[in-house]
Amino acid sequence: MAVRTPDPDPNEQPDDAEDFAAVGAAGFGGVPGGSTNPAWLSDVELTEIRRRLPMLYVEAVPVRTDGTGSVTQVGILLRATPVGEITRTIVSGRVRYGETVRDALFRHLENDLGPMAFPLLPPSPVPFTVAEYFPIPGVSAYHDDRQHAVSLAFVVPVTGTCEPRQDALEVTWMTPQEAASDALAAEMEGGRGTLVRHALASVGALR
Amino acid sequence: MAVRTPDPDPNEQPDDAEDFAAVGAAGFGGVPGGSTNPAWLSDVELTEIRRRLPMLYVEAVPVRTDGTGSVTQVGILLRATPVGEITRTIVSGRVRYGETVRDALFRHLENDLGPMAFPLLPPSPVPFTVAEYFPIPGVSAYHDDRQHAVSLAFVVPVTGTCEPRQDALEVTWMTPQEAASDALAAEMEGGRGTLVRHALASVGALR
Amino acid sequence: MAVRTPDPDPNEQPDDAEDFAAVGAAGFGGVPGGSTNPAWLSDVELTEIRRRLPMLYVEAVPVRTDGTGSVTQVGILLRATPVGEITRTIVSGRVRYGETVRDALFRHLENDLGPMAFPLLPPSPVPFTVAEYFPIPGVSAYHDDRQHAVSLAFVVPVTGTCEPRQDALEVTWMTPQEAASDALAAEMEGGRGTLVRHALASVGALR
Amino acid sequence: MAVRTPDPDPNEQPDDAEDFAAVGAAGFGGVPGGSTNPAWLSDVELTEIRRRLPMLYVEAVPVRTDGTGSVTQVGILLRATPVGEITRTIVSGRVRYGETVRDALFRHLENDLGPMAFPLLPPSPVPFTVAEYFPIPGVSAYHDDRQHAVSLAFVVPVTGTCEPRQDALEVTWMTPQEAASDALAAEMEGGRGTLVRHALASVGALR
Repeated sequence: MAVRTPDPDPNEQPDDAEDFAAVGAAGFGGVPGGSTNPAWLSDVELTEIRRRLPMLYVEAVPVRTDGTGSVTQVGILLRATPVGEITRTIVSGRVRYGETVRDALFRHLENDLGPMAFPLLPPSPVPFTVAEYFPIPGVSAYHDDRQHAVSLAFVVPVTGTCEPRQDALEVTWMTPQEAASDALAAEMEGGRGTLVRHALASVGALR
Repeated sequence: MAVRTPDPDPNEQPDDAEDFAAVGAAGFGGVPGGSTNPAWLSDVELTEIRRRLPMLYVEAVPVRTDGTGSVTQVGILLRATPVGEITRTIVSGRVRYGETVRDALFRHLENDLGPMAFPLLPPSPVPFTVAEYFPIPGVSAYHDDRQHAVSLAFVVPVTGTCEPRQDALEVTWMTPQEAASDALAAEMEGGRGTLVRHALASVGALR
Repeated sequence: MAVRTPDPDPNEQPDDAEDFAAVGAAGFGGVPGGSTNPAWLSDVELTEIRRRLPMLYVEAVPVRTDGTGSVTQVGILLRATPVGEITRTIVSGRVRYGETVRDALFRHLENDLGPMAFPLLPPSPVPFTVAEYFPIPGVSAYHDDRQHAVSLAFVVPVTGTCEPRQDALEVTWMTPQEAASDALAAEMEGGRGTLVRHALASVGALR
Repeated sequence: MAVRTPDPDPNEQPDDAEDFAAVGAAGFGGVPGGSTNPAWLSDVELTEIRRRLPMLYVEAVPVRTDGTGSVTQVGILLRATPVGEITRTIVSGRVRYGETVRDALFRHLENDLGPMAFPLLPPSPVPFTVAEYFPIPGVSAYHDDRQHAVSLAFVVPVTGTCEPRQDALEVTWMTPQEAASDALAAEMEGGRGTLVRHALASVGALR
C-alpha cells in the first residue's frame, strides 16, 4: 500500500487522507502527541476542510544550472498514483500550521528528491508565479479534484543526487526544450505543464 | 457595534468571528443558502480552523502614481479595533474558497476603500512579497494573535476617491518618506510597517 | 520617406542612423542645440558606438486588461522596415543619456502607439525579463544585426486608442493564445516571439 | 599605484580611465589585440562616451544564507578610492560589448571577492531592482559623478572564502540590521545604502 509518509512520528502530519488511513491503521491516531496537537487533522477533517477553505501549497521545479547560474536541465517527477496510474509532476505539498513557507519547501524537496539532493533555496520569498488550483476545470490553468489550492511556485537548483522517496518513482532530467514541449504538458497532472513553462520563462529558458 | 460587513447577503461570508456574531444576530445564520454552502464557516468553525491551518490572505498597499507610474503617495488606513483602539493598517483580507486571488484582492480593496477608488490591479499575479503572520511574535516580522496567515501582498495604484467603509475610518495619504518612517511603523498593527517598507522598495521609492 | 521622428526639435536625438540622415537632410544637424549637446550623436558616431558598447533599450508589450487586471489581449505592432519588408514587433527603443528608464519607456510608447494610448506604466522599475540582443545569432534567444543591446522589458496596459505613428503601421490586438503561437513567433523580428511568451508567462496568461 | 586589473591581457578591457592609464603605462595600449578589437576603448574614448550614452552596469550584494536560503549576513566592501579615501560599496562593474549580463556579473564577483568566493548566481535574469545613477545628484537615489549608469542589481549568495583583490581592501560581513542602518548608508558611495536596503527587502530581510 502506497504511503506518502513512510517514517511517521507523533509530530508528523500526513498531507493526504489516504496517508492518514495508512498511518492511522498503524495506531498513530491514538498517540497523545497527535490528539493534543490542535493543528493535527484527521482524514475526515482534512477532506471536509478542503471543501471549505483554500489550501496553501508550495511547489518547486528542480533545475540543474551551469557555473553562471543558467538553467541547463529541468527535473520532472514520475509518480504513481494510488490507483496505479503513472503521471508526471513536480515537487508539491501543503504548508502546515505554524510552518514557514521556506521550511515547507525544504521539507517537500527532501521528501520528493531524497536527503542527498542538496537543494539551493532562493534567498527571496517571492515565487515566480502563484498557481491557483480549482476543483472545477477551466476556472484557471490549474486543476485539482480534491480542493481549492493556492500554490507558491519556485525554481530550485539542486546540486546533489536525487533519490526520490515515497510515491515519486523517478526524477527525469530534461532539457528546457523538452520540459516546455506539448508532449510533456499532456502527461503532467493538474495543468502543471503550464507551471513548468512559466518556470522556464522566469529564468529566461523558454523559447 | 462595529460590523465589517454592513450589507450581508446569503452569499456573503464574514471574515471574522465578531462579524459573524453581528450578522448572525440579524438572522443570517439560519438562511438556507448559508447552511447548504459547504464553504460557509460559522464563527466557531472559523476560530477553530484558524488554529489548525494556515489561512490565505491578500493585502494591498494603495498608492498614487504620477503620469509615468512613479509612486508619489501611499495610502495608510486608520482603523478602529472592536475594543476602540485606533491602529494603522493596509488593505487586508482572507481569500475565500473558490475565489481567485485577483477577485479577493478586488473585493477587499472595494470593501476598505469604497466603490469609487478605481484600483488598478496589476497584470501580474506575483506579489511583491509573501508575508507570514504567526500567532507567536518573533517567528517572523509579522504577527497575528488569531492565526497563522500567509499573505500575498501587492502594490495597487488607485485613481479615484477613497471613501473607506466599515471599520476603516480614514485613508491617510503620505509621502513615501513618511510611510517608511519609524513613527508610522510603531503605529501599524502586526508588523505591517515592515510590509510597507518592502512595498516601497519594490517600487524603488524607499530611501 | 520614412522618418521615425517626424517632429524634430533641437533637443531631439534620433535613435537610428537612418533617422538621422532624414532629419539631417532637413537641416536638423546644423542647429546649435544639437551641436553643443555632448550627448548628441551623429549617425556615424552612433553606428560606431554600437560596435563597441552594449546599448541600453526598453521594450514594452502593450496589453488590454479586464476590470481585475487580467490580461485579455496583447498588442503586436506591424512595422515596415526601411527596405519595405513587413515585420511584427513590440514597442522598443533606446534609453538616452540623462533620461530615466521610465521616461524612455513613456516616450517610446507614445512614439509607437500615439498620444491617445494612455499607457499605465507599472509602479515597479523591475522588468519582467532582461533581453540580451547580440549581433551574432545564437548567443541568446535575441538577435540584432546592428548592435549588442540589453533591453529591460515591461508589460504595459494601455487604456486608450492606439494610433501608431511613424513606421509602425498598425497595432493588432490578439488573444494571449494567438500571441504565444509559433505562427506569430515566426513573423517577429529579432526573436521577440520569445519575449512575448515571457511577457505572457509573467502575467500568468501563457498556457 | 592602484590598478583594478592587475593581470592585463590583450582581451582585457579596463573599466575605468584611471585603470587604463595604469595599464597603458605597462604597455597594454600598444598591443595589436587591443588596437584591432573595435570594442576596445581608450581612456579618452571611454571618458567621452560616458558623457553621451547611458552605461550598462551590473551590481551584486553578496550574502550568506542558512540551510533554507534565508539571508543571515550581507557582505559590504571596504574600498580605497584613487585619492586615498575609504568608502563602502558593493560588487559593481560595467558590462562589456558582447558579454552577457550573467558573465559580467560573474567576472565582477570574481574580481571583487576573489576566485574562492564561489558565488551562486541566480537562475533568473531579472534583477531585484534597476538602479539609475546620474551625474547630477538628486535626479534619483543614485549618483555617479563620471556618468549616467543603469545598473541591474542582484543578490548573490556566496559559499566560499572572500579574498578581495585589487582596490577592494576587505569584505565586512554584517547582519541585515547593520546593513540597513543609517550609519552604513552614510558611508556608502553613490547612494548604495538605498540599494542595500532594496536588496534586503527583496529577500524579506529588511525590518
